[in-house]
Amino acid sequence: MRTQVGIIGAGPAGLLLSHLLHLEGIESIVIERKTREEIEGTIKAGVLEQWVVDLLRETGVGERMMREGTFHGGIELRFNRKGHRIPIEELTDGKRVTIYAQHEVLKDLIAARLQAGGHIIFNVGDVTLHNIDTSAPKIRFRQDKIGEFQEISCDFIAGCDGYHGPSRSYIPNRKEYLKMYPFGWLGILTEAPVSAPELVYTHHERGFALLSTRTPWIQRYYIQVDPNDNLSNWSDDRIWTELHARVETTDGFQLTDGPIFQKNIVAMRSFVCETMQYGRLFIAGDAAHTVPPTGAKGLNLAAADVLKLSQGLVQYYETGKTDRLNGYSEACLRRVWRAEHFSWFMTTMLHPDPTQSQLEKKLQLAQLEYTVSSRAAATSLAENYVGMPIDW
Amino acid sequence: MRTQVGIIGAGPAGLLLSHLLHLEGIESIVIERKTREEIEGTIKAGVLEQWVVDLLRETGVGERMMREGTFHGGIELRFNRKGHRIPIEELTDGKRVTIYAQHEVLKDLIAARLQAGGHIIFNVGDVTLHNIDTSAPKIRFRQDKIGEFQEISCDFIAGCDGYHGPSRSYIPNRKEYLKMYPFGWLGILTEAPVSAPELVYTHHERGFALLSTRTPWIQRYYIQVDPNDNLSNWSDDRIWTELHARVETTDGFQLTDGPIFQKNIVAMRSFVCETMQYGRLFIAGDAAHTVPPTGAKGLNLAAADVLKLSQGLVQYYETGKTDRLNGYSEACLRRVWRAEHFSWFMTTMLHPDPTQSQLEKKLQLAQLEYTVSSRAAATSLAENYVGMPIDW
Repeated sequence: MRTQVGIIGAGPAGLLLSHLLHLEGIESIVIERKTREEIEGTIKAGVLEQWVVDLLRETGVGERMMREGTFHGGIELRFNRKGHRIPIEELTDGKRVTIYAQHEVLKDLIAARLQAGGHIIFNVGDVTLHNIDTSAPKIRFRQDKIGEFQEISCDFIAGCDGYHGPSRSYIPNRKEYLKMYPFGWLGILTEAPVSAPELVYTHHERGFALLSTRTPWIQRYYIQVDPNDNLSNWSDDRIWTELHARVETTDGFQLTDGPIFQKNIVAMRSFVCETMQYGRLFIAGDAAHTVPPTGAKGLNLAAADVLKLSQGLVQYYETGKTDRLNGYSEACLRRVWRAEHFSWFMTTMLHPDPTQSQLEKKLQLAQLEYTVSSRAAATSLAENYVGMPIDW
Repeated sequence: MRTQVGIIGAGPAGLLLSHLLHLEGIESIVIERKTREEIEGTIKAGVLEQWVVDLLRETGVGERMMREGTFHGGIELRFNRKGHRIPIEELTDGKRVTIYAQHEVLKDLIAARLQAGGHIIFNVGDVTLHNIDTSAPKIRFRQDKIGEFQEISCDFIAGCDGYHGPSRSYIPNRKEYLKMYPFGWLGILTEAPVSAPELVYTHHERGFALLSTRTPWIQRYYIQVDPNDNLSNWSDDRIWTELHARVETTDGFQLTDGPIFQKNIVAMRSFVCETMQYGRLFIAGDAAHTVPPTGAKGLNLAAADVLKLSQGLVQYYETGKTDRLNGYSEACLRRVWRAEHFSWFMTTMLHPDPTQSQLEKKLQLAQLEYTVSSRAAATSLAENYVGMPIDW
């Protein structure tokens, strides 16, 4: 097979890149380890930055999002059993919080690519990269994981294959930054009505909790747990007891229970790989960096990477110049570190840490108190939450 | 001896309290462990919040400060060898950074108290407190540390005797919060011309440095050192070499050397005592809480405490009501924790920490980069630096 850009991974980074390149007349082939059903069924993030919403709309894949997504003007920070609203829309000149699950974005992108004749190969295995320091790199893989080896010859390779994917390892002399947190999130999907009008981020001495939503009938809730804990320790009853205890308020907030039909536990990690490129290989999204989910930045950061990468590729194919491609990693990393810092900030502000001192606990509450009392501090949180301008 | 309010300690808290009470017709006696010469010669903090400047002026002790103090519209944050100005005056509707050394404030307060017939007893020893849970508490002490024991009978005792003073220990069931930092400041006074138009807070891989000023001919500079280091390891040459290395910029900033006539090393500590009162005893300033000096909050927080305490005492003597006195600790602690958090924030943002990971180093630089690039973040720093409103 031959294409212009070989893309490894059909997550938000890979699919959006393929979509953006197609609109500029650049061909790509996407290969993906999972099946289409797995990709379209895996529950992940759900909050989109305003510029991502705008980009999806402007490029023709935002119609269902605008119809089925949920749009909020703020979020709530809850601590000491009281809620405090951060009026994000007001503090950021009209930017809103868009809640639309990642796998729904992926469905829309897959449908758009296939409708436009795009080429996505699902369920591949044994992916290796070759000749990336030449102008004729290749991707080798095995169809259906057991079939014959196949090759994609291309001009560039985009490694959009996530934290565990193989692409990153092909960047020699890379520097990796990693921090594991001493807590994880147990997430559930439940068939229950909406409990709160906007997302609720709760700091409680028993641990963090987040009330999020999917539809008026399906809610997505999270509680902080030990990252090494096992789902078998968490009966539905225990989860509801814990959720109720953490989100209760002195003015009688009511959380409505429902049947739980999905549970998972995720560990929390801050990770950055510098640099994000080598020769004709460019890595993007979780392949290059991961953030703890508290800042809701994962998908958004992947989108920012591939927007910049597509601009570099467009420049190359239109003019033959490579300065944008050469500057790809540097252009991405400023935003990456901003998002890494914001995600760390939100995470450390909202999670009681079993290793922290009594003084650090009080500093955490002082930070929360300040964030909801100072317009400057609230604006700082708000502008990060809905996303700094793409060229910040 | 008999007075209305017995005050232990002639630092900023004790002297300002005595001054404020006098203006309201309430008598006090101040006792102090050090001599007047020591008090007036000990180099400490030098940055005053705007409301403190206003208070000193309004209560008649601000004349020399307005004549000899230095007033800046901003501060500089320097990192990666580049300076970035935080335009504090512009971001806070006209509040300025006032630089006027703590011992100069003390000289002005001592002069004002003595001129008004105030009673300050210097050089006392063996201070003990008695009957603080009755309406007739007493302070016992020894004049000149070796003389006969004397007693002050009073209605209330104000413990303004610093972190190492005896007052705090008389509060039973108090809870103490403490954090020691893995770095200290080596401070110097030097006879040299001003090097920078405003204070310069520098993050450098060799360690933090601060360029501050006292007069056009006397400068106050600091460098981060190991808190257990010894002054004997720091020749003048070594100090200048280190300062030059840390504050240099890519655009050729010049630091002018001069003779060093004072050096000291201070450890950095965050400390809060809850509660700040028991019976007829009220503690204020460093006796109740200390902050690392990076936020320039120590003296300002002491002033806020005693302003609130004076208001409680005025209410009591005017109306017999005790609700403001009863609420003293709670009224102080919100501001205390704000200042504790800000001081921790400034300290951890600006000091490379020998124990931090590579990722944490990068987060530190990301925080700095954001602070100087976002108006909201800069405003947040600015409003804390010049002081939140007294009734925040």
